[in-house]
Amino acid sequence: MSDNTQTFWNPMVHPGDPTSRNRIEIVKGDGNYVQDGEGNWLVDGVGGLWNVNVGHNRTEVKQAITDQLDELEYFQIFDGLAHPKVHELSDLIIEMTKPEGMAKVMYSSGGSDAVETALKIARQYWKAVGQSQRYKFISLKQGYHGVHFGGASVNGNTVFRTNYEPMLPGCIHIDTPWLYRNPWNCEDPEELGQLCAKQLEAEILFQGPDTVAAFIAEPVQGAGGVIVPPANYWPLIREVCDKYGVLLIADEVVTGFGRSGSMFGVRGWGVAADIQCFAKGINSGYIPLGATVVNQRVAQGIETCENFSGAVMHGYTYSGHPVACASALASLKIVQDEDLPGNAGIQGADLLAKLQDALLDFPSVGELRGKGLMVAIDLVVDKNSREPIDPMSGFANQVAAVALREGVIVRPVGTKIILSPPLTIGTEEVDKIVAALKQGFTEIDK
Amino acid sequence: MSDNTQTFWNPMVHPGDPTSRNRIEIVKGDGNYVQDGEGNWLVDGVGGLWNVNVGHNRTEVKQAITDQLDELEYFQIFDGLAHPKVHELSDLIIEMTKPEGMAKVMYSSGGSDAVETALKIARQYWKAVGQSQRYKFISLKQGYHGVHFGGASVNGNTVFRTNYEPMLPGCIHIDTPWLYRNPWNCEDPEELGQLCAKQLEAEILFQGPDTVAAFIAEPVQGAGGVIVPPANYWPLIREVCDKYGVLLIADEVVTGFGRSGSMFGVRGWGVAADIQCFAKGINSGYIPLGATVVNQRVAQGIETCENFSGAVMHGYTYSGHPVACASALASLKIVQDEDLPGNAGIQGADLLAKLQDALLDFPSVGELRGKGLMVAIDLVVDKNSREPIDPMSGFANQVAAVALREGVIVRPVGTKIILSPPLTIGTEEVDKIVAALKQGFTEIDK
Ligand SMILES: Cc1ncc(COP(=O)(O)O)c(C=O)c1O
Ligand SMILES: Cc1ncc(COP(=O)(O)O)c(C=O)c1O
Repeated sequence: MSDNTQTFWNPMVHPGDPTSRNRIEIVKGDGNYVQDGEGNWLVDGVGGLWNVNVGHNRTEVKQAITDQLDELEYFQIFDGLAHPKVHELSDLIIEMTKPEGMAKVMYSSGGSDAVETALKIARQYWKAVGQSQRYKFISLKQGYHGVHFGGASVNGNTVFRTNYEPMLPGCIHIDTPWLYRNPWNCEDPEELGQLCAKQLEAEILFQGPDTVAAFIAEPVQGAGGVIVPPANYWPLIREVCDKYGVLLIADEVVTGFGRSGSMFGVRGWGVAADIQCFAKGINSGYIPLGATVVNQRVAQGIETCENFSGAVMHGYTYSGHPVACASALASLKIVQDEDLPGNAGIQGADLLAKLQDALLDFPSVGELRGKGLMVAIDLVVDKNSREPIDPMSGFANQVAAVALREGVIVRPVGTKIILSPPLTIGTEEVDKIVAALKQGFTEIDK
Repeated sequence: MSDNTQTFWNPMVHPGDPTSRNRIEIVKGDGNYVQDGEGNWLVDGVGGLWNVNVGHNRTEVKQAITDQLDELEYFQIFDGLAHPKVHELSDLIIEMTKPEGMAKVMYSSGGSDAVETALKIARQYWKAVGQSQRYKFISLKQGYHGVHFGGASVNGNTVFRTNYEPMLPGCIHIDTPWLYRNPWNCEDPEELGQLCAKQLEAEILFQGPDTVAAFIAEPVQGAGGVIVPPANYWPLIREVCDKYGVLLIADEVVTGFGRSGSMFGVRGWGVAADIQCFAKGINSGYIPLGATVVNQRVAQGIETCENFSGAVMHGYTYSGHPVACASALASLKIVQDEDLPGNAGIQGADLLAKLQDALLDFPSVGELRGKGLMVAIDLVVDKNSREPIDPMSGFANQVAAVALREGVIVRPVGTKIILSPPLTIGTEEVDKIVAALKQGFTEIDK
């Protein structure tokens, strides 16, 4: 018997490890801050978990939720049923994704759901247009697409698959356009973008183009360590996909609605995907919500199919949940009214520059990278070889613990420290984050 | 181009079919009633979608949500973080499942998530205890376990897989203990229970017991058409699982927290599962929530594993969402205080008896079956052969349309009409449902 009396398991840890639980209790949130059980107010350097983009305790969002609860807390949208908020939100999302040409929304309750929906719809599209042999998915190493069996199968980090094998058939992983660490030791962004796009093309040819359903990737990899692709990467990828008819799925669970400095991640690279996955920033996490949007090509392929292959045998009890939709309408209004994508760009650039100034001289800080309000500190044992620190060393946790003592929550993930604060932060919070991390490295990295 | 201007897709329909959308809009809920866009108050004969167990617009649940929003609308429980409500709710769930011996809760945002979590944890358990060759899942025909790739793979109805193949490897489907239609034409409940349990044993032996991870089933099948197994079925299934060490997963997404007339579905059959999946009734759907609970055997197997196979690389951004947890605490208090499982038993028996009285003489009504407040009307072209009506005939939809006009929402699903009202209904609503359906069959079944 372990002496573990906590009655729930935290995600993504070994539940037998006593350090996996009861680290801090968070009891309150307000704006860019949260309060712990001892009454300390802390800068929320992780924005909940990449999602509380409008900040905590926003009256407008809370009021929208309360108002909706007084109207209709829940009813299904199966069987041709609907309610006003699901129409309103869908119209807004399609309006916001007009530059990307998106046509229809399918709802769910989170990012893993949004990915599963995208993968299933991609396969269905090919069956609907008479090419059912196209079922394979190509994705990126280091990529993160959630934890359902589909998403875990395309995840680029083995740790998310190994305890759950065998996974979905037909999932292939290729290299990530990661300037700091790549198999070619390529240091030139343009060249790296070309090498990676060529690898996608080679893999499609190797698999047989008429067996590949879709390529899925994050516009900027988040959980994998904020890996920002070169400027030519996404346009080249779009070209390769088009050349072989392969659907392009952008997993925008983190980047959707402003975090990377543009309203959508793909917009930042000047491309459009065929399918986009949303969660997190869609409503800043006040109520669980996910959405998957498809463009005219995918929508038409399925809608005009005259047999059962056009029947979307997919959907959730909580698809289009009225309270979740209401919270998204209120949250997205703030995102637009306050130009949070713009602020993410400005504050993100300031945060990255100040962190580089403050931290790059520490021996363990290999690289500081980011785009918008996604920032990662890459920890190394040696700056020249770029060999990562031992993730079991506890180094990142120790730095995070000092930062916490200094009043800032950051996220230690093995060999990295990750920042993803609300998109509402200003110079005050930027400076507090930088100071707390500087103190952390000063104490731990000696 | 289709003339479909609706910007979202309803679940489980062909989005090219104009009848799949805009059937009715629901704008308000109160108690056992919802209001449509034209101001008509309708008996909610479907309880949202099997989930609004405490009824609509409950002040206690709304207040709990509003209060929690004023404290903390969201923070993650990754990295050993927590907040008060996730502790409280987990303690309550473990207390409520004490007779079943449950030990730990893992959270998510819906039923499909709860199933995916159960399947993944079952595979992980076997790897953690050194039997990684045990990866297969056995499930029942007609069973429904949601729409993620894992759940869809174990679903017992082909329509949920066919547009998304190839599915997860290692999923095997056996016959359901369905007295009305089974491959043996067996009409004796005891004998049928034995035949089905023997089939499970034979399948385990055929696959090789040391390759089978788990058997998953609903205590009473819901979406498949309210299929109530014979009294000896679950005890026999538990015996077979124990004989070969196979984990028993009870998908209690519909039956959990009272709907079948006991607090949990398995409790109604006097057995305990190793893993239970919850959603819907856990908080009556006010906020998306799912939970998967594991017993001491599973918890210990994983917690005491000393290598990476014990690391639960699973979990969601919205695992343990504070607002969802708060809504569940308030909702479960009502379930307990008002003895809703007891009321489900009483009203369910009354509803079933009155429906049998009113409908069994109609030529198309083959069988009326139910347990608690899960009831199905099985529609046939011929009572003797029991041949189902053509699901494309629109017959069930037509009956449902009359019932709607008469002020009652029921759920037409192909060859069945399904009822799953709030557990708070009384004689008034029971009588309205019966009268509306009687009118429906009188007009349509001539
Ligand atoms: C890019 C991406 N996709 C999918 C997910 C899964 O989302 P969720 O945790 O809401 O299931 C995440 C979560 O962090 C993510 O970052
Ligand atoms: C038994 C069962 N399991 C799983 C699910 C899936 O739940 P959700 O729709 O919340 O994903 C359902 C939904 O009806 C269900 O009835």
